[in-house]
Amino acid sequence: MFSHLVLGAPVTSRHAKKGNLPKRRALPLFGADGLSSVAYAPDEIMLTLLIAGHGALVYSPFVGLGIALILLIVVGTYRYNINRVGEKGDFALVHQNLGTGAAMLLGAALMVDFILTVAVSLSSAAQYLESITPAILGHQRLIACSLIALVTLLCLRGLKFMLGISHLPSYFFLILLTGLIACGIIADSSGDLGLASSASYRLVSDKDAMNTLTTQTGMGLLLLRAFASGSVALTGVNTISNAVNAFAPPRQRNAATSLMIVGGLSAVSLLGVLYLAQKTGVVFAIDPNLLIIDGQPAGDDFHQVPVLLQITQAIFAHQLASVLMGIATVGVLIVAAMTAFTGFPMLATTIAAKQYLPVQLSARSSSSLYANGVLALGLSAMFLVAVVGPDVHTLVQMYIVGVFTAMTLTQYAVLRNRWKAQRITLDRKKRQHIWRDIAITAIGASASVIVLTVIILTKFTHGAWVTTLLILFLTWTMSKINKHYTRIDQQLDLDGNLQELARDCALPSRVHALVYVERVRKPVLRALAYARASRPSSVEALLVNVDEARTRENIDTWNALQLPVNLTVLDSPYRDPVASVLDYIHHRRQKSPRDVVVIYLPEYVVAHRWQRFLHRRTAHKLRGRLRHEPGVVVASVPWQLEQ
Amino acid sequence: MFSHLVLGAPVTSRHAKKGNLPKRRALPLFGADGLSSVAYAPDEIMLTLLIAGHGALVYSPFVGLGIALILLIVVGTYRYNINRVGEKGDFALVHQNLGTGAAMLLGAALMVDFILTVAVSLSSAAQYLESITPAILGHQRLIACSLIALVTLLCLRGLKFMLGISHLPSYFFLILLTGLIACGIIADSSGDLGLASSASYRLVSDKDAMNTLTTQTGMGLLLLRAFASGSVALTGVNTISNAVNAFAPPRQRNAATSLMIVGGLSAVSLLGVLYLAQKTGVVFAIDPNLLIIDGQPAGDDFHQVPVLLQITQAIFAHQLASVLMGIATVGVLIVAAMTAFTGFPMLATTIAAKQYLPVQLSARSSSSLYANGVLALGLSAMFLVAVVGPDVHTLVQMYIVGVFTAMTLTQYAVLRNRWKAQRITLDRKKRQHIWRDIAITAIGASASVIVLTVIILTKFTHGAWVTTLLILFLTWTMSKINKHYTRIDQQLDLDGNLQELARDCALPSRVHALVYVERVRKPVLRALAYARASRPSSVEALLVNVDEARTRENIDTWNALQLPVNLTVLDSPYRDPVASVLDYIHHRRQKSPRDVVVIYLPEYVVAHRWQRFLHRRTAHKLRGRLRHEPGVVVASVPWQLEQ
Repeated sequence: MFSHLVLGAPVTSRHAKKGNLPKRRALPLFGADGLSSVAYAPDEIMLTLLIAGHGALVYSPFVGLGIALILLIVVGTYRYNINRVGEKGDFALVHQNLGTGAAMLLGAALMVDFILTVAVSLSSAAQYLESITPAILGHQRLIACSLIALVTLLCLRGLKFMLGISHLPSYFFLILLTGLIACGIIADSSGDLGLASSASYRLVSDKDAMNTLTTQTGMGLLLLRAFASGSVALTGVNTISNAVNAFAPPRQRNAATSLMIVGGLSAVSLLGVLYLAQKTGVVFAIDPNLLIIDGQPAGDDFHQVPVLLQITQAIFAHQLASVLMGIATVGVLIVAAMTAFTGFPMLATTIAAKQYLPVQLSARSSSSLYANGVLALGLSAMFLVAVVGPDVHTLVQMYIVGVFTAMTLTQYAVLRNRWKAQRITLDRKKRQHIWRDIAITAIGASASVIVLTVIILTKFTHGAWVTTLLILFLTWTMSKINKHYTRIDQQLDLDGNLQELARDCALPSRVHALVYVERVRKPVLRALAYARASRPSSVEALLVNVDEARTRENIDTWNALQLPVNLTVLDSPYRDPVASVLDYIHHRRQKSPRDVVVIYLPEYVVAHRWQRFLHRRTAHKLRGRLRHEPGVVVASVPWQLEQ
Repeated sequence: MFSHLVLGAPVTSRHAKKGNLPKRRALPLFGADGLSSVAYAPDEIMLTLLIAGHGALVYSPFVGLGIALILLIVVGTYRYNINRVGEKGDFALVHQNLGTGAAMLLGAALMVDFILTVAVSLSSAAQYLESITPAILGHQRLIACSLIALVTLLCLRGLKFMLGISHLPSYFFLILLTGLIACGIIADSSGDLGLASSASYRLVSDKDAMNTLTTQTGMGLLLLRAFASGSVALTGVNTISNAVNAFAPPRQRNAATSLMIVGGLSAVSLLGVLYLAQKTGVVFAIDPNLLIIDGQPAGDDFHQVPVLLQITQAIFAHQLASVLMGIATVGVLIVAAMTAFTGFPMLATTIAAKQYLPVQLSARSSSSLYANGVLALGLSAMFLVAVVGPDVHTLVQMYIVGVFTAMTLTQYAVLRNRWKAQRITLDRKKRQHIWRDIAITAIGASASVIVLTVIILTKFTHGAWVTTLLILFLTWTMSKINKHYTRIDQQLDLDGNLQELARDCALPSRVHALVYVERVRKPVLRALAYARASRPSSVEALLVNVDEARTRENIDTWNALQLPVNLTVLDSPYRDPVASVLDYIHHRRQKSPRDVVVIYLPEYVVAHRWQRFLHRRTAHKLRGRLRHEPGVVVASVPWQLEQ
């Protein structure tokens, strides 16, 4: 079967277990998102700083240190959150402490984050692939979209198997990265460090940008922008805090420890790469036309090699090293995308359970996978890359606003939670603990708010507005969906008063069976037999007079059959059988509204789809219209045509 | 209502009467097709002859006389047919005398003819419009398609009104045409005849064509081709012979007389126009690059004014005359297209009644119009013009093969009919009459066969192959459709033996009611009440266990309600409720195949379409799958959600 081919072998509900990955496996998987940010975060910081010319690079370590500081603060507070608020995940936490509005906002921000995780990671992977295989240069959009399609299919087909080997790329990447930074620092201290391939490029300053940058405010703003761009290194934090459930017990402690380790590794590698980039003289530009190579502008099609690969080349001066580093980076970026594919369906299910998203998202497929969620994520990411383009720089601007919106909301929720706890706790020791929590969380929350403010102030026109609109639109959609479900629950739930309930359960006093007759043939006889077998209060056959001659013919056949059922002929001056039958039923219902009308529709079931167009679809149209008629049951009596 | 806006006010069946147009109204309407051919037939003859250079034009009167002769022969025999074989139309005639195969072929040919009548007439009308309004030059395809859309809408909206005024353009055109030819001949005899605007163009011979034309065979072939092209003047004949029903009684005599008049007028005007074209020195070329104007080739975009307008200009030497003539021609061409819009639905209905086309084509709309047929014709013609282009020359090549296929088949059918009559008639006087019929029809049939052969031999590569393929494809489709209907009739008709019939009418021994429960809420209670009200042999509620916790919840609610119905919980290890329910019903049916299972599906009816995506469509999927299960009735119990 096709669905098995795509979705893999079916898995029974009993065999689908809760995740319990040991730390050594969970850490590289859920940490991949954070670790892999070193593939593009340094590039973003340098790109922004180099707008002010080569000299501005002296600030890059300070920016890096600022980001590392924020990272450690946020990680610290999140570690606290995980230990305190447990395995419910950020959405449940916010829902409980800040109410439905904030929860919807968080849900929207997190969903957008997952989409952008996939888009950024795989666009960056495409960039690395291009750098190590010059043959495919210039097809980044196609490669990025293909990678998204591939990862989606892999996740649909055999997520389990993929998760089983997903720790390997992360470890491979970590080993190479550690080796790279270590060798680089040793080479630097011994004075053997080579220059990057871009070190010889000259950078022309963007005049417009320079005019504003000569002022101190301008330069300050640029530093803030570089800081905002680089804060994409923090994206991995909420990946882990939302995946507590997947860790082996003790879940919370394992997740918290993993978070600390990933945070530390991310901070160190970001600083290391930034330091080595400065030492090897890497030059970068958003607009390749500002790069002067051998006296010529680089041109629009010029491909800039990522910082990580440039320093690899500079340190080891061997093509093989770059290729290995490139493969490792692509690997870890793919794993980062895969964590989104495991996280998104879980999040969607949680939100759907609270009736903010369609119930279908919480339906597990035959292979015990939330296939709808996986597909939704894959298609959204592909759509985004196809429309916005695979440019990592643009995508990162869109990414960070979602990440910090989510972080701010979560931290604020923890703060509220602890504040409430403080008010009902009397034990002195416990109160002390809670006050410590509040202090730490307050620091984290402030840091998040500051970064979010910086991002919105400096990045709004650079792409953050898209994400902001998207998050608001998603929030609005969720509230519409929730309103719909709530209204239905009010109408359908059995908690109404007993009288009402009794009315709904009460047997209708009489059942009138109507059999729709288009032409007196075998299917009509069968429908009639079934109708009579249900022993209704009355049976009546309905024939609509559209064509005088045919009607006469049908009446004659009917009379010849000597059936014990009356044939009512409805006149239809405008030749519209559906309207005539509707009128008639309407009329009947008005006369005795407490009775139920069951209309039996004899239907042909044709063997091939095209043959449907050879039959009047009166039964189909009638069914569609009768749905809106209360007290009417439509019974289809199919007649399977042999071929 | 939208449909009333497009289709016009509804008309009751009682008010829709059989056509009875007096001859003075029917003749200009159904004759328009034949009369209007003078707008393009002379052009086609001259175009073909002028391939051999200017000198070849001396043959044009002979070609014209040949066509006039064939026209009179065909008209003569058709007049006979109408009087002898009556008002049943060509299709019924062929069906009766030559069998189903030939009838389908004729039906296909006639349908293609109608499509091409519209395409040719309105493409030619677009050409005339361009000639009198130079501002719209170069947009012939758009104009032709717009005209088709306009005429389709006019016919949908108020065919009756249009038919009421449709004789005016024809009379206007006839008066102008008669005046033109009379004035032309007077001017010619007095030596006052001016020269056409194209008389000064020099014609370069097409070298390839000339090489073959130097031989006598080549020249003979060219004359035959010119003759074949010009035979498009005969297209109006079967329009009248298929519209006998629309004439006022005595229908047959009126139609036959009209046919004679139209035939005579067509022949005279064709000859007149050809004569005047030669005298005024009109020059024409298929490839405008062969025309030399002031020493320069005319170029691909050069617009050639139709012959009729060129001689009008030459005779009256006044712009107003050309404009009037142009308007009259456009008018009569539109009426010609409209006759196709009245004829096609009638033909389609006749064919559909014999089960060669979908029954929907024989359904009259609320305004008593075969709207489906009108739409089908309009869309096909527009598609043809959009794909093939509005080039009258190409379309004419495609047109004539269909026309003469139809003519040949019809004449052959009359021949067969008379031959059979001859064999069973003993009366000497009657036999003499019949033999006279046979002789006349044989002449007509031979003429048709000869022309058809000439067309296929000389025109196959020029576009006739498209029509041939189209006709064959349509014939094949009709036979497929017919096979489907026949097979259904065999299966469903009540003419089987009595035992079989008794089985189909027999009441099933028991009725088992199943109520599908997704969640125990009000809609389920209503469905249950309805199921119980039908007093079945057994009632059972079905709940599929997809999620352990939810199932437990549902069972608890069910027990709390203390309903007198058993709730059966079906296990669904792969979380597929549709498959589980199907399995269960299958199992039940196997145990007692003579019983009927009625499954009640509680369904939500949402207020807005988008809200459908917020609900599991299990009921919908179940209904789709259960259609293929014999002995199962699906009863939908809708619950209308308030908004």
